[in-house]
Amino acid sequence: MSEQDPLVIFTPSGKRGRFPTGTPVLQAARSLGVDLDSVCGGRGICSKCQITPSYGEFSKHGVVVQDDALSDWNAVEQRYEDKRGLKPGRRLGCQAQVMRDVVVDVPPESQVHKQVIRKRADVRPMVMDAATRLYLVEVEEPDMHEPTGDFERLARALETQWGVTGVTADLSLMARLQPVLRKGKWQVSVAVFHDHTGAPPRVIEVWPGLHEGGLFGLAIDLGSTTIAAHLTDLADGTVKAASGLMNPQIRFGEDLMSRVSYVMMNPGGDREMTRVVREALSDLARTLAEEAGIAPELIVEAVVVCNPVMHHLFLGIDPVELGQAPFALATSSSLSLPASELEISTINPRARAYILPCIAGHVGADAAAVALSEAPERSEDLVLIIDVGTNAEILLGDTSRVLACSSPTGPAFEGAQISSGQRAAPGAIEKVEIDPLTKEPRFRVIGSDLWSDEDGFSAETAASGITGICGSGIIEAVAEMRMAGILDGSGLIGSAEQVGTPRCRAEGRTHSYVLFDGSAEGGPLVTVTQGDIRAIQLAKSALYAGARLLMDERGVNKVDRIVLAGAFGAHISSKHAMVLGMIPDAPLEKVSSAGNAAGTGARIALCNIAARAAIEANVRKITKIETAIAPAFQEHFVAANALPHATDPFPELCRIVTLPKVSFNAGGGDSGRERRRRRRG
Amino acid sequence: MSEQDPLVIFTPSGKRGRFPTGTPVLQAARSLGVDLDSVCGGRGICSKCQITPSYGEFSKHGVVVQDDALSDWNAVEQRYEDKRGLKPGRRLGCQAQVMRDVVVDVPPESQVHKQVIRKRADVRPMVMDAATRLYLVEVEEPDMHEPTGDFERLARALETQWGVTGVTADLSLMARLQPVLRKGKWQVSVAVFHDHTGAPPRVIEVWPGLHEGGLFGLAIDLGSTTIAAHLTDLADGTVKAASGLMNPQIRFGEDLMSRVSYVMMNPGGDREMTRVVREALSDLARTLAEEAGIAPELIVEAVVVCNPVMHHLFLGIDPVELGQAPFALATSSSLSLPASELEISTINPRARAYILPCIAGHVGADAAAVALSEAPERSEDLVLIIDVGTNAEILLGDTSRVLACSSPTGPAFEGAQISSGQRAAPGAIEKVEIDPLTKEPRFRVIGSDLWSDEDGFSAETAASGITGICGSGIIEAVAEMRMAGILDGSGLIGSAEQVGTPRCRAEGRTHSYVLFDGSAEGGPLVTVTQGDIRAIQLAKSALYAGARLLMDERGVNKVDRIVLAGAFGAHISSKHAMVLGMIPDAPLEKVSSAGNAAGTGARIALCNIAARAAIEANVRKITKIETAIAPAFQEHFVAANALPHATDPFPELCRIVTLPKVSFNAGGGDSGRERRRRRRG
Repeated sequence: MSEQDPLVIFTPSGKRGRFPTGTPVLQAARSLGVDLDSVCGGRGICSKCQITPSYGEFSKHGVVVQDDALSDWNAVEQRYEDKRGLKPGRRLGCQAQVMRDVVVDVPPESQVHKQVIRKRADVRPMVMDAATRLYLVEVEEPDMHEPTGDFERLARALETQWGVTGVTADLSLMARLQPVLRKGKWQVSVAVFHDHTGAPPRVIEVWPGLHEGGLFGLAIDLGSTTIAAHLTDLADGTVKAASGLMNPQIRFGEDLMSRVSYVMMNPGGDREMTRVVREALSDLARTLAEEAGIAPELIVEAVVVCNPVMHHLFLGIDPVELGQAPFALATSSSLSLPASELEISTINPRARAYILPCIAGHVGADAAAVALSEAPERSEDLVLIIDVGTNAEILLGDTSRVLACSSPTGPAFEGAQISSGQRAAPGAIEKVEIDPLTKEPRFRVIGSDLWSDEDGFSAETAASGITGICGSGIIEAVAEMRMAGILDGSGLIGSAEQVGTPRCRAEGRTHSYVLFDGSAEGGPLVTVTQGDIRAIQLAKSALYAGARLLMDERGVNKVDRIVLAGAFGAHISSKHAMVLGMIPDAPLEKVSSAGNAAGTGARIALCNIAARAAIEANVRKITKIETAIAPAFQEHFVAANALPHATDPFPELCRIVTLPKVSFNAGGGDSGRERRRRRRG
Repeated sequence: MSEQDPLVIFTPSGKRGRFPTGTPVLQAARSLGVDLDSVCGGRGICSKCQITPSYGEFSKHGVVVQDDALSDWNAVEQRYEDKRGLKPGRRLGCQAQVMRDVVVDVPPESQVHKQVIRKRADVRPMVMDAATRLYLVEVEEPDMHEPTGDFERLARALETQWGVTGVTADLSLMARLQPVLRKGKWQVSVAVFHDHTGAPPRVIEVWPGLHEGGLFGLAIDLGSTTIAAHLTDLADGTVKAASGLMNPQIRFGEDLMSRVSYVMMNPGGDREMTRVVREALSDLARTLAEEAGIAPELIVEAVVVCNPVMHHLFLGIDPVELGQAPFALATSSSLSLPASELEISTINPRARAYILPCIAGHVGADAAAVALSEAPERSEDLVLIIDVGTNAEILLGDTSRVLACSSPTGPAFEGAQISSGQRAAPGAIEKVEIDPLTKEPRFRVIGSDLWSDEDGFSAETAASGITGICGSGIIEAVAEMRMAGILDGSGLIGSAEQVGTPRCRAEGRTHSYVLFDGSAEGGPLVTVTQGDIRAIQLAKSALYAGARLLMDERGVNKVDRIVLAGAFGAHISSKHAMVLGMIPDAPLEKVSSAGNAAGTGARIALCNIAARAAIEANVRKITKIETAIAPAFQEHFVAANALPHATDPFPELCRIVTLPKVSFNAGGGDSGRERRRRRRG
């Protein structure tokens, strides 16, 4: 490379260098460390190294690029153009040679480490760098005079042609290898898994010639109630198919602790639960592959996130220790292992699985995935991240320190233990408004965009009916009841007389509020009972107390922003949540939803190998707070029972909402005196 | 450690050092790197660190050891003595403290790296250093404030208490761990497998408290005809049980090439053969554990040696490539993998398997094991090692260079393709002598120590009968026929007239020699036919030609010594083998038998982890010679057809044996003229 050699400038990286006339662009890119993809290693067959030369004067770079800056279009490029077509202006980087000074643009699809923009504007883009990569190699033919195994020659080819050293493989790959090598005439595509743990790279699959079918992975969010998976292209992070199904373990217990109890009562029951969840995952993988129209053996990786009990049940470990203090995990580290050990039988038999680390006995790999997605350790302002589910996982932190705990909210937020509660499904009331003057409600149900007082509502909901109230619906209903003065600060529902509406009906010594009465048409009566209010109070107190415990540890009374994660978090109205005192007081615009952050975290770990090492290191740094043994938790819990709170002021909430100062005899059992006084008034 | 501190001298190592008064002997040993065993880490419960203090004057060491050189017998030692008993003069190294200058002997059973003397005087002893070792650890109890998994705390205990870093484990171990830790009150014995490949150490098994049941391994010689295994104690190399069974693949083909043909004719037939051999191994393991009276889960390792075709069939790899040039192995390297991948189902589910490397497509892991046992690369004189079987593996070498080849001898040496041939079993003729004057034979059969002309022979063999002739028997018979002038140098059996005995009977245009005629009593007629002679000639020519090919490569006409390996090698008479020209000429005292050297090599690799790396390195250095494509092989083969040889002089043989210069019409088809001449004479 002398001063006379042509100058090559790559964009967008800005990397530049001089190369002898005739150097292929791919070779120049490699020697400069420019991120330019290639599967075939410059043989002109994979077309991954497409580049776009720029011509004209570039004062910014100080060069003028002539029309003949690159060598002429050659036969290989012509053949590719004829067969597949190249976009206008594109060249194959391995064929086009540098003849004069040139500016070469590497389009995003030609970058290995391409950025994948996430839907939300407030998060970093994900950078592609999957653990499993494809390499085309030419393997030496066997030689009787220098006898070595076919696999050893494949390993040597990976080393000399790609710098991938010391590969190993399962026996089943060895058994596949010989016919594939011969069918490919000693040219084969090799999928190699690079383990971030430092274990030797593993050959996962081989195909004769150039494999053009792609490589895929599953990002799996294994929840107590639902299992969701995204089938993802490992080259560019595209989601090819997404699907979910109910966790079949539900038949052994709705919530985690009832599943743990099941195991305690039925020795060996854990094995049965392990079996059904693994089968469900296999089914889900098969469905996704069918939906995306790809061969199952092209799924070469799976990343799984889940809470600690699901973690143990999925791994085949008895979860009973997680049901009692000190909540000891059998293993807390991340796991990188063959997917076959987890009996995921419908993907490549040599596919790899990665399970994110658990943070603590109550704070699982799902919380770690939320941390990976939301990156509190990189937040300049203090962020509170709440993943709302049967257990709430709570993270609080910024660049200086991150804390984590879980809080046993129970299933009320998911509509369970609520008298008219149901899962989020068509027919479920999901949004509620109550007129503070008339105390009359209106609502929307899943499956229709109309409010119940709008024209056409009956027609649109005729098919589903109005069947009950789901998690977000009950939160809105309770908050609206509080705002409309139907419910007092202690959580008591007033009587018809106290509130001034016949919708408040007596039920024994308490009252309930009728949200919808379909009994005239043989439909259900959807009410919010005093028991429902108590269930919501217990759940929200636990959630709030957990958050406060972390805030205590950080020595703060307020947070800069709040992120609600979880599928459910996406549906919660921030205002209503704050009226209930589910979350600490904060400006409403500082409360955002992260959607299924755990699932996103799984997808990041699937698409970027460095993210695995990063979250493992971060998890070790997170301060774990155990709510079950913190005396302050109980105090916070009691104080948080009021709506929104007995002592915490909630100034931001007061700025937008004025809560009626009603009280429905919080003191005595019978509210007779209060009622009499009102009647007189 | 000052000059005033007591001096401790360990024997037999001679290591010495000064230690403060009160230092436990075990601690002194460790800081000096003395090989003193301990499983409990000095807790006084495993008794592995027993030592014997020596008292009196040691002019050699320049010390006088007083009676009070060590601290008094303490309560821990007393408890051990009461419970188990200590040999006289013994102390527990972890309890006895250094008070004054002392000489401490470490008896062999207290050494980790104890030497195991092999039966033969001509080989190095084996040094114990098994890959799987036992450690007693105290694991920290779980702490809610510092939540980590039980496995992670176990790993930390191994690191801090034993310096074993970065252990990993299968899911099935994780699933076992929690109850064992609690049962052992956080004190557990851990079997850790240390992989010589550099892979992280793996926890194979855990037991509550101190595990005293030992750890065992299987050394398996997986032959085409028989599978032999030795159940070996991994602490001291003792063979606890040994057994063998027929390779069930025999029903698919007697020899290897017929099994390869079976696969070619029956696609998928390889999977069936893989299944049956794995089942056989599992059965064998179960039998051995029962015989030795040990629990199957105490078998934590298996080392397997076998020829290339068995290698592939055992690993589940289609062997068809091994049936045709260029005889490409799917993989030639050693393999270190879970035994469960090989479906050895009757041992510890997390047991490890190690398969020695193959040398070439025809020279397998069994030949590598022979090389490990016989160590030609350390021989000062040039040694020829022949492992006689259906294929003969041949090694030639010394410290400068080692060569290897295999030669297709066929099964004649094992009694197959011989008219009266049979496997070595009671009733088979195994030794033969023929009187050179009378041409009358006498013989011995397996199951009796008497010769056939001795009193009591009939009685002793009544049960088994005389059923045929085994491999060593046919070699002796043919050699004796040659020495007695019944057979000429070209391999022709003379007629009754030519030889002068009615035992030579005409069979069509050739003759056979009657070794035993039991037909009067309804027994068999055991003869050596002209066809038998031809089969032996083909086999021995191949063997000799292979050896000569290696000698050509080394540029020598003779070797310094010859080692016959293989179960069969143990039964071959050196003199008879040389009369046949099976092996090159050499002084008889320089021909020895190594017994089952392949099995011994497997046992060495099982008991000494360093031996695995050593044989892998040595195999890479061995020069491989492919007999199938060497033009000289054919020439050597033809020249070796004569008995002992057409051109090679065999001076050492001539010194002890004078072969009759007979010729039974080697020229024409009909020997009539010769016969007539003799009749006249």
